[in-house]
Amino acid sequence: MLKALFIDLSGVLYIGKQIIPGAVAAIAKARENQLQLRFVTNTARNTRAQILIDLNKLGFSVSEQELFTAPIAAHAWLKEKKLHPYCLIHPNIKSEFSDLVQSNPNAVIIGDAEQDFCYDKLNRAFQLCQQGAPLLGIGYNRFFKLDGQLLLDAGPFIKAIEFAASTKAIILGKPSRDFFLQVLGSTNLQADQVLMIGDDIYGDIEGAINAGLHGCLVRTGKYQSGDENKISPSHQTADSIVEAVDYALSETRKI
Amino acid sequence: MLKALFIDLSGVLYIGKQIIPGAVAAIAKARENQLQLRFVTNTARNTRAQILIDLNKLGFSVSEQELFTAPIAAHAWLKEKKLHPYCLIHPNIKSEFSDLVQSNPNAVIIGDAEQDFCYDKLNRAFQLCQQGAPLLGIGYNRFFKLDGQLLLDAGPFIKAIEFAASTKAIILGKPSRDFFLQVLGSTNLQADQVLMIGDDIYGDIEGAINAGLHGCLVRTGKYQSGDENKISPSHQTADSIVEAVDYALSETRKI
Repeated sequence: MLKALFIDLSGVLYIGKQIIPGAVAAIAKARENQLQLRFVTNTARNTRAQILIDLNKLGFSVSEQELFTAPIAAHAWLKEKKLHPYCLIHPNIKSEFSDLVQSNPNAVIIGDAEQDFCYDKLNRAFQLCQQGAPLLGIGYNRFFKLDGQLLLDAGPFIKAIEFAASTKAIILGKPSRDFFLQVLGSTNLQADQVLMIGDDIYGDIEGAINAGLHGCLVRTGKYQSGDENKISPSHQTADSIVEAVDYALSETRKI
Repeated sequence: MLKALFIDLSGVLYIGKQIIPGAVAAIAKARENQLQLRFVTNTARNTRAQILIDLNKLGFSVSEQELFTAPIAAHAWLKEKKLHPYCLIHPNIKSEFSDLVQSNPNAVIIGDAEQDFCYDKLNRAFQLCQQGAPLLGIGYNRFFKLDGQLLLDAGPFIKAIEFAASTKAIILGKPSRDFFLQVLGSTNLQADQVLMIGDDIYGDIEGAINAGLHGCLVRTGKYQSGDENKISPSHQTADSIVEAVDYALSETRKI
């Protein structure tokens, strides 16, 4: 029986500044029906504080305890290991890493760095990894949608450095099993009591299923026709968050 | 019995403008002993004509018929298929593709584009591939050495676009089996009569072995300690091109 929803943000609740029709009401309906909610995002273009402000501006009342972001998970990992990261991340979130020593780096972290993905900075990341520095990825997403365009996310650049330096990245955020289990730990539930709702067949749905959760792919955001067939484990599909919440509620009423 | 040598250029005969000690004499010795020579390079920073001029300046007398470059192979492929490429290649070799229509591109070609590997141009390459354009790679090399530094080659960027667009690149140049067989076709020999000498364990040695040739890894250029153990098929190793040629000559005398 479903007792919680893990919900991706961009492409599921909104695209850019546009709310997905019915999303605010759907989230409210899920709350009214006692579903626990967690919002899980690999977004690495905004700080956690800014994401909360934006969500509330859009009409979603989300508390700090309900929001899990990949950059925060990555920061915690680096801090625990006392590593000095070379940060290939978006200027907007550099402040979230500013408490870490970044001179003489001995680790590399790659997020959605946008224009910072240039030859010189990618070479620096590669050279450090080639010398043995661990490679961290903020998510492993292939692309995202912005202003109607598909744009490269961090995943392909992580893949590039992995290949060049013959290494394997540690992924913080979706689709990492550890990340899903960390979010699950904030509930008192079993994995199979949770439905992950997302628009990324790999990062959201396949990742959640690998962690033991259920998955529901929505046909909004970056969804492209045929995405549902790209993975073999069984999962739900829904036209949007509205239909996904209705499905979840129908499941909670089954027993 | 070995009857021909396929020889990689950068890292094997020279590094930058520095000749590998003994390389000129080693090549001359191979010629005197009737070994057929082919020079095979993925270098995508110079036109074929410029490479010939540079080789001859360094003291290696190499004829046009002996030199096989990946960009020329890629150009021939695009021309045969009548495709309009979006070229992510080095400014130095753009002239080699200038006879191809490049407006409204329906193919993507990625070489060692250096500073052209930037977020906007990589996005364009990705978007075209996402829409179904074939992806061509000039080689699949992971990195190369320049002025003492290891720098990213085309391979990692090809890998990035393959991952983002869920596609598989067609590789022109090493380690493509077709490329080795094309060079082999210019001799009258069987694959097992040829030794490939290179400093790239994957691109040169593994690629050659997959095409049925023998391989000899030299410990110059981009070679890093332990590289010989990165692939399973058996191959020779040599301190440099000098020792590699001596090994080849000893093999030609065996029968």
